[in-house]
Amino acid sequence: MQTIKSLKQKNSSKIVLCVLDGLGGLPVNGKSELEFASTPNLDAISKHSALGLQHPISVGITPGSGAAHLGLFGYDPLVYDIGRGVLEVLGLGLEMTSHDLAIRGNFATVKYEDGKPIVTDRRAGRISTEENKRITKKIRSKIDEIHDVKVSITSGMEHRFALILSFPLSLPETSDDIPDTDPQEVGKSPIIPKGNNITAQKVAKELEKIINEIVEVIKDEKKANYILLRGISTFPKLPTYEDRYGLNAGCIATYPMYKGVSKLVGMEVLEVNGDSIESEVDTLIRDYDSKDFFYMHIKKTDSYGEDGNFEAKAKVIEEFDAQLPRILKLSPDVLLITGDHSTPAAMKAHSWHPVPVLLQSKHCFGNNSSGFSENGCRAGELGIFKSTDLMPLMLAHGGRLKKYGA
Amino acid sequence: MQTIKSLKQKNSSKIVLCVLDGLGGLPVNGKSELEFASTPNLDAISKHSALGLQHPISVGITPGSGAAHLGLFGYDPLVYDIGRGVLEVLGLGLEMTSHDLAIRGNFATVKYEDGKPIVTDRRAGRISTEENKRITKKIRSKIDEIHDVKVSITSGMEHRFALILSFPLSLPETSDDIPDTDPQEVGKSPIIPKGNNITAQKVAKELEKIINEIVEVIKDEKKANYILLRGISTFPKLPTYEDRYGLNAGCIATYPMYKGVSKLVGMEVLEVNGDSIESEVDTLIRDYDSKDFFYMHIKKTDSYGEDGNFEAKAKVIEEFDAQLPRILKLSPDVLLITGDHSTPAAMKAHSWHPVPVLLQSKHCFGNNSSGFSENGCRAGELGIFKSTDLMPLMLAHGGRLKKYGA
Repeated sequence: MQTIKSLKQKNSSKIVLCVLDGLGGLPVNGKSELEFASTPNLDAISKHSALGLQHPISVGITPGSGAAHLGLFGYDPLVYDIGRGVLEVLGLGLEMTSHDLAIRGNFATVKYEDGKPIVTDRRAGRISTEENKRITKKIRSKIDEIHDVKVSITSGMEHRFALILSFPLSLPETSDDIPDTDPQEVGKSPIIPKGNNITAQKVAKELEKIINEIVEVIKDEKKANYILLRGISTFPKLPTYEDRYGLNAGCIATYPMYKGVSKLVGMEVLEVNGDSIESEVDTLIRDYDSKDFFYMHIKKTDSYGEDGNFEAKAKVIEEFDAQLPRILKLSPDVLLITGDHSTPAAMKAHSWHPVPVLLQSKHCFGNNSSGFSENGCRAGELGIFKSTDLMPLMLAHGGRLKKYGA
Repeated sequence: MQTIKSLKQKNSSKIVLCVLDGLGGLPVNGKSELEFASTPNLDAISKHSALGLQHPISVGITPGSGAAHLGLFGYDPLVYDIGRGVLEVLGLGLEMTSHDLAIRGNFATVKYEDGKPIVTDRRAGRISTEENKRITKKIRSKIDEIHDVKVSITSGMEHRFALILSFPLSLPETSDDIPDTDPQEVGKSPIIPKGNNITAQKVAKELEKIINEIVEVIKDEKKANYILLRGISTFPKLPTYEDRYGLNAGCIATYPMYKGVSKLVGMEVLEVNGDSIESEVDTLIRDYDSKDFFYMHIKKTDSYGEDGNFEAKAKVIEEFDAQLPRILKLSPDVLLITGDHSTPAAMKAHSWHPVPVLLQSKHCFGNNSSGFSENGCRAGELGIFKSTDLMPLMLAHGGRLKKYGA
């Protein structure tokens, strides 16, 4: 990937990457979601586009959305890592910097034996989200800063919360330097934070104090009388789009997690008024002159896929298809349409199946498509490849890579 | 690649690799150069051959010819590097050894401010090639050796020249150890040679003296009164075909650069009388008994591609097709036809598009081809793969690789 960085060259070309989350599917009654959906506009452009299938991580691997997006953005998810705490924090729409530690927390129930806490419920009986909000509010009212560490706790759903700790001292470099405190089993004591190196040990010591102070606030709660910390992660150090590709990039998304991941690679999050695909395209049109690269994220394909709602997923694809002419009217030099991973409604879950890709540019071979579908893409000129090849492909088609060697 | 070396076994099989430079194209009026050309012989053999597409470097990367040829020869271009100075020297048909430093030079114009040279034209007003020849002759008449370093300067086109320096002391190992002296901008001073390590620093010191002595000779020239050095490179240390593959290999080419690159991997350059494809095939027939492996290079497909001359490029493909029966008459055990990269006439340049491959041998699956074209190859039994897989494929089909493991 150093190769791509060394070959980058700037020009005025525009690249638009549309990600229909969980796009890939499986046949139900003989047709996949993409085959079932009526997509006259996609089918029309597929005739002079390059089609293919991309593996988000590796053959057989089902990706989480964060990892899958790293691949789409050209960062090998097997090399670069976004800690789970960071994803949790981004998913809640919170901000973090390189001085912060991001943590996913669970409220839990413990009993005490000889003064030692023993976990009796790792999820505090799945307390209600309202109950959660009351408790986190109580913590916030009592604790703001402990030993120079700013403590910021935010409720999630049911027993979950996110914790951001802003440290004055330097932070461990990777996300694996402080293991989870969750013992993973009831009947065991919560694990006392430990660091895998000297810096992490200092941070772990502070973490221990912070846990104790929070537990002091909630110790009389019936269910949520303890906290377990997981995915204790620092801000991932990712090269930016500007540095790596020479691209001034903008993100058009409505869900916090996707805005967060794009901020990690230095994209500017562009404002969307509303949460429809139409309003996302409005933003693209409004800000078209100000950026080189646009990442547009459409969430609902995945949501309905996870619900097992085949027809609703197909309908979202149709909605996108209906908006496509407005994107085409901008005449981007490179238009790439794909998903971050497959979410077949038939499986009600993310899956490992490779994801359809359509690339439109004047440098495509074209002329060999049987429409934008899993089968059409399988026969396409791009073949089956890894998602990390998408960025080099887009850059090449946009004239943004110099020749390699003489 | 160590694997291939450890599995090699010798036999009497013959392998012929035909490289049509810049073979791959893009459709113009619905057909690519290869589709447009009338190629009855290629189409006939494609029916019982294995077809596929190869990526010369990596998806989206446009290769230079030197790097692309390394891939064809089975040396990963992202690992092995031929310095630009070496390619320049090879392109002019000059010889070099592991004691030499090869450099691309520009004549430049400088003015002096407080005795300090300031570049006013990095290309000396693109002086004529005749003017260049006069000046290099003058330098040669004055300078032959400086401090035990043999200096050999050869004119290129316009302001360009090649410099070979034969050093008595050991040379830096890689091509990046002494950066260019070209400041890349007018108004700046030429960069004084610097070495990135101790050996390179010694060489850089000598280089500085040599520049000064050459400048002393040309300082009164009106335009070409200075030299800027680029691509300061040592002889690349590549394993030979004999060592790596157990192949006694011959090169059939008419352009210096390609002869030079094949010499780098230990091929013997076979004499061609003339510069037509026919005369290259004459050489193949004449020397057929003396080698195991033949690399035949056809240049004009690329030249016409770069000119944007679609029909002339197609015509060269037809010329090759007409010569094909003479090659087939030799019944090589393996015949592989491909390009080093794509040069679509529509783009007038090298491109990143994968390159058609046809492999004929009695061990092909065959029977699934729609003719030798980008589309036919896309549907072929070899799929889409990296160029470095070509050598293992040829060796395997020639029975020249043992079983791996027990």
